[in-house]
Amino acid sequence: MALKGLSFEHVPVTLRWEHSDHDRPEYREFNPQANVPVLVDDGGRINQSLAIIEYLDEIRPAPPLLPQQPLDRARVRSLALFIACEMQPPNSLRVQRQLASRFGADPRALSAWQLHWCEVGFTALEAQLSTSAATGRFCHGDSPGLADCFLVPQVYTSQRPVVNADLSKWPTIRRIYQTCLALPAFEGALPQNQPDYESPVGH
Amino acid sequence: MALKGLSFEHVPVTLRWEHSDHDRPEYREFNPQANVPVLVDDGGRINQSLAIIEYLDEIRPAPPLLPQQPLDRARVRSLALFIACEMQPPNSLRVQRQLASRFGADPRALSAWQLHWCEVGFTALEAQLSTSAATGRFCHGDSPGLADCFLVPQVYTSQRPVVNADLSKWPTIRRIYQTCLALPAFEGALPQNQPDYESPVGH
Repeated sequence: MALKGLSFEHVPVTLRWEHSDHDRPEYREFNPQANVPVLVDDGGRINQSLAIIEYLDEIRPAPPLLPQQPLDRARVRSLALFIACEMQPPNSLRVQRQLASRFGADPRALSAWQLHWCEVGFTALEAQLSTSAATGRFCHGDSPGLADCFLVPQVYTSQRPVVNADLSKWPTIRRIYQTCLALPAFEGALPQNQPDYESPVGH
Repeated sequence: MALKGLSFEHVPVTLRWEHSDHDRPEYREFNPQANVPVLVDDGGRINQSLAIIEYLDEIRPAPPLLPQQPLDRARVRSLALFIACEMQPPNSLRVQRQLASRFGADPRALSAWQLHWCEVGFTALEAQLSTSAATGRFCHGDSPGLADCFLVPQVYTSQRPVVNADLSKWPTIRRIYQTCLALPAFEGALPQNQPDYESPVGH
């Protein structure tokens, strides 16, 4: 939203290990997928971060978050989807809850589990980014875009003490992360800069 | 590809619990994300199913796999992403392997795990589909589209004996699944109709 220069009203929905806002029946009625975030706009409700960003790019084309050429667009989507489909899901709150309830995973096992998926994922992503001439100051070229909007929260999460991934192993990812955080749009979106900030959930 | 009337050369990459094609170093060099499928076209390599389908819709607009209006496009992407980001990943081969090696999950526990994510996911998806006037003969309206391309493989997987989800709990999903499979494009894409078909991997 900030990259597009769009203003919005922030309605907090806080995820917690117990008594989480997204488990409440009224939230499930509002959003059957029971996940966050949801964008309410023009009479519609949109969830899934990638669907929201594609929507914003369609209704407010400037500045673009996707490049122009189909093959380039596919590259950017592939980077974002790798994070959205293969890095974030195994470490989600709902998967961690099931690991605890079904397999008795304790906080130490949950930390090791999360670190595993960060390590495997960032290693693959570093290979993809570092070997491509299309990578620039950002994931694609020299302007922030859709893939960066997925990279930053994934790196941020990996730096929480409970995961504590060693970013120095992935220098391209670290460089892009730092470049993004130097921009007010990304810095302002950090969890600790939200009005409803609470300590992270999960173990 | 079949919905678009595009012909292609099929190069099999077979996932197995052990000695899987996608674990081979030469495959990782070809595709750092080490996943399937990959579309090779016009000098580029595209992976992540959603990125491939969006690419095909951009280079071959007819018949469209996404509707025209931004809010409708967002709805279709949201349905596809729910499957791609929240239903498929916990049941992926790589996650199942880690459940076995870290937590000693046996075949019975892995079946129960897979069934859990199918039940939770299809229940949410059924609520989203059955309460929306936008749902038609297919996930969105009366033509097959992007969301159907994600729904069909997810339902197919849930019907394997090792998972055996009871589709009668989700009548809208079952109806759309059956409507899709009546089309040659979907029927021809079933695993057992591929030249390299092997029995399913995983437990």
